[in-house]
Amino acid sequence: MDILSTKEMTRKEMLEVLDHARSVEQGTSLSGEVLGLLFFEPSTRTKMSFTSAMKRLGGDVVDMGSVESSSVKKGETLADTVRVVEGYADALVIRHPREGSARLASEFVDAPVINAGDGAGQHPTQTLLDLYTMREEVDEDLGSLHVGVMGDLKYGRTVHSLSLALAKFDTRLSFVSPSELRLPENVRRELEGSGVEFREVEDVEGVVDDLDVLYVTRIQKERFPEEREYERIAHSYRVSSDSLEDAGDVRVMHPLPRVDEIDPDLDDTEHALYFRQAHNGVPVRMAILDMVLGGSG
Amino acid sequence: MDILSTKEMTRKEMLEVLDHARSVEQGTSLSGEVLGLLFFEPSTRTKMSFTSAMKRLGGDVVDMGSVESSSVKKGETLADTVRVVEGYADALVIRHPREGSARLASEFVDAPVINAGDGAGQHPTQTLLDLYTMREEVDEDLGSLHVGVMGDLKYGRTVHSLSLALAKFDTRLSFVSPSELRLPENVRRELEGSGVEFREVEDVEGVVDDLDVLYVTRIQKERFPEEREYERIAHSYRVSSDSLEDAGDVRVMHPLPRVDEIDPDLDDTEHALYFRQAHNGVPVRMAILDMVLGGSG
Amino acid sequence: MDILSTKEMTRKEMLEVLDHARSVEQGTSLSGEVLGLLFFEPSTRTKMSFTSAMKRLGGDVVDMGSVESSSVKKGETLADTVRVVEGYADALVIRHPREGSARLASEFVDAPVINAGDGAGQHPTQTLLDLYTMREEVDEDLGSLHVGVMGDLKYGRTVHSLSLALAKFDTRLSFVSPSELRLPENVRRELEGSGVEFREVEDVEGVVDDLDVLYVTRIQKERFPEEREYERIAHSYRVSSDSLEDAGDVRVMHPLPRVDEIDPDLDDTEHALYFRQAHNGVPVRMAILDMVLGGSG
Repeated sequence: MDILSTKEMTRKEMLEVLDHARSVEQGTSLSGEVLGLLFFEPSTRTKMSFTSAMKRLGGDVVDMGSVESSSVKKGETLADTVRVVEGYADALVIRHPREGSARLASEFVDAPVINAGDGAGQHPTQTLLDLYTMREEVDEDLGSLHVGVMGDLKYGRTVHSLSLALAKFDTRLSFVSPSELRLPENVRRELEGSGVEFREVEDVEGVVDDLDVLYVTRIQKERFPEEREYERIAHSYRVSSDSLEDAGDVRVMHPLPRVDEIDPDLDDTEHALYFRQAHNGVPVRMAILDMVLGGSG
Repeated sequence: MDILSTKEMTRKEMLEVLDHARSVEQGTSLSGEVLGLLFFEPSTRTKMSFTSAMKRLGGDVVDMGSVESSSVKKGETLADTVRVVEGYADALVIRHPREGSARLASEFVDAPVINAGDGAGQHPTQTLLDLYTMREEVDEDLGSLHVGVMGDLKYGRTVHSLSLALAKFDTRLSFVSPSELRLPENVRRELEGSGVEFREVEDVEGVVDDLDVLYVTRIQKERFPEEREYERIAHSYRVSSDSLEDAGDVRVMHPLPRVDEIDPDLDDTEHALYFRQAHNGVPVRMAILDMVLGGSG
Repeated sequence: MDILSTKEMTRKEMLEVLDHARSVEQGTSLSGEVLGLLFFEPSTRTKMSFTSAMKRLGGDVVDMGSVESSSVKKGETLADTVRVVEGYADALVIRHPREGSARLASEFVDAPVINAGDGAGQHPTQTLLDLYTMREEVDEDLGSLHVGVMGDLKYGRTVHSLSLALAKFDTRLSFVSPSELRLPENVRRELEGSGVEFREVEDVEGVVDDLDVLYVTRIQKERFPEEREYERIAHSYRVSSDSLEDAGDVRVMHPLPRVDEIDPDLDDTEHALYFRQAHNGVPVRMAILDMVLGGSG
């Protein structure tokens, strides 16, 4: 069993993970099992939470370390690296800058492969923890929610992954972004094909009071030729206590790290769900590891 | 329970750690517990000894890795990082170049925070292992000792931390340094306020035959505008078999790594206490972890 | 017990390791034991397989991390580093760019030291896993084999280590290399002294149909003043399905990572032994760790 993409997971399969995350318990069920960590790009939260999840199940990890300190630097192909590491570990977690890398890896090894982000592609365990957070903290019935997704909708793999998954639950979606950073054509077409109800707007004001969840992502400076243009846009897509004053009890999520897009004055309010969301990486990844390695679920 | 500074620990609290370090045993008391390692500056001995201590108690660690490979590089604040990592670990160990960082972190999380060095501030677990070493290897009664502290007394957090802690035990202190690297005003004033007996001298010859312990620290080249001036001073604050010939059985300590300030010809003599001192990092950190996480002590 | 070099291991001692590797089992025999990893040079497979081996025996590791993140950068000597780390670990694994480093380390500590590669010197655990692979996958009786060693025979520590070890088993050896990269004089002389039957040739065609094993190593571009000369030579020492068409059932080994010297079209044939060889790092290192730390074997 590989976890490569939420695209090919059915609603039922996703719910199985979410249900298992609810009940999985710290213990020794993966005692003796070793998880191989292959991060070809920097990561803090994904790597640490996989490590923590594995250890809380009694298992352990072996870490390839940074690309600089590995034989990848000597020109080894990904296919060779994973076939070697398969001998050291019972399952592999891979993050790689090239889209499709995790799938490629899965074709070369028998061990289960978990995609922890492949370029502009997928990041399925992030999506599953996002869904888990909405289900546990907002509403058991994801289909009854209205979720706003705001920020850089063009380049963010997190946004694409999440939107297509929510579409499978018939969650109502509102996409909020400057016109330069709208959803890419291929994602928009997939959403249309799914039959989910969604709209695209440029201002959050018109939709926020109807939202249950506002999922915020970072707008990166590098996307804009002029600093001034970036400043203008970044400012108008910034969320604060002020901007949510008339917004009811909308809950704010963010894959983190944030830079400026959520004002810290939101941190101690009922709106803030982003730290709890990050923490949910542990039970969700425990559930995934337990299903992949322990045969449960 | 946080361990942020020896300044606010009472003599009694420090003795509790030292007593517990004496009796703490390898085992499984922290089985299932995970310690988060957040080192924003390089470290070998502190990080390795915390890791070893945790594992010898049956617990495990998750390591943020280097700043370069983490989301700190993306501009995340320390407050955000610790609030995220709190979800992955039961306690946090933090080293950070900015003074006050561990305290700041402790204000944002519920998990216990252990300061592993904050800029020019404190390094309390180093001080506790220094005290433990003096108590176990030199004299049970720290108050009966005469300790010389030599080298760079101006910039070293280790020296400040240790001196203020020894003052609480009424240990007699002699500070030996070139005038350029004397104790900073604030530390001198605190020592005066404590009522401890201390003096400041420029030459070790006058005091060394009366010392029980000579605590040596490195004099850094960067502190001197002229290479020649540095060479002259570094040479006269170098300890060797020769320089200790008439010094009785004074024991030499050093937080390590040393560069040139202790001649290797001392390594196999009775004077050398610095490697045993480094090794004491394990029982002392086991004691601290056990008290912080296991409820013992 | 240190593992510093296969040079000073007898045939009997090597067979003890190989026998133990055959029977060593995953479990908890090293529970509570901590292995110190000191890699002063990058490594993927050696470090990961030692880590995996230790964890599969119930033990754990503490890792110094990269040189950049350690106090080695502050100018600490190897002798000091190992004497400190000895306090954190029950045995040490060392890789270092300077020949003789592991031996030097072993003179300063009581803990067992395992050499994981010292410059142009030795890499004994690689040699043991190479022998193990030949014995398990090709022939129980290493003395009955005819092994070809091809590529850069001048600079490769793996080649020197392996050749001298095979000589102890009276394995017939054929060395295949361009004249610029022939065996160094000192290795050739040792082989002559050992009485083993060996020859040196420039073309693999003349010997390959008689070989049981062809051990391929990389030819590095840096060795050649002219790119064109390198291209010509690298190409003629490249192994592929084509080049092995008339070679019978010769098995191909490689210490990995490979770059261009083995065509991937060999990967799914019976010739390819290199991935299984890499995987054998785990049982062989488990055997070594168990013998060094657990008193078995």
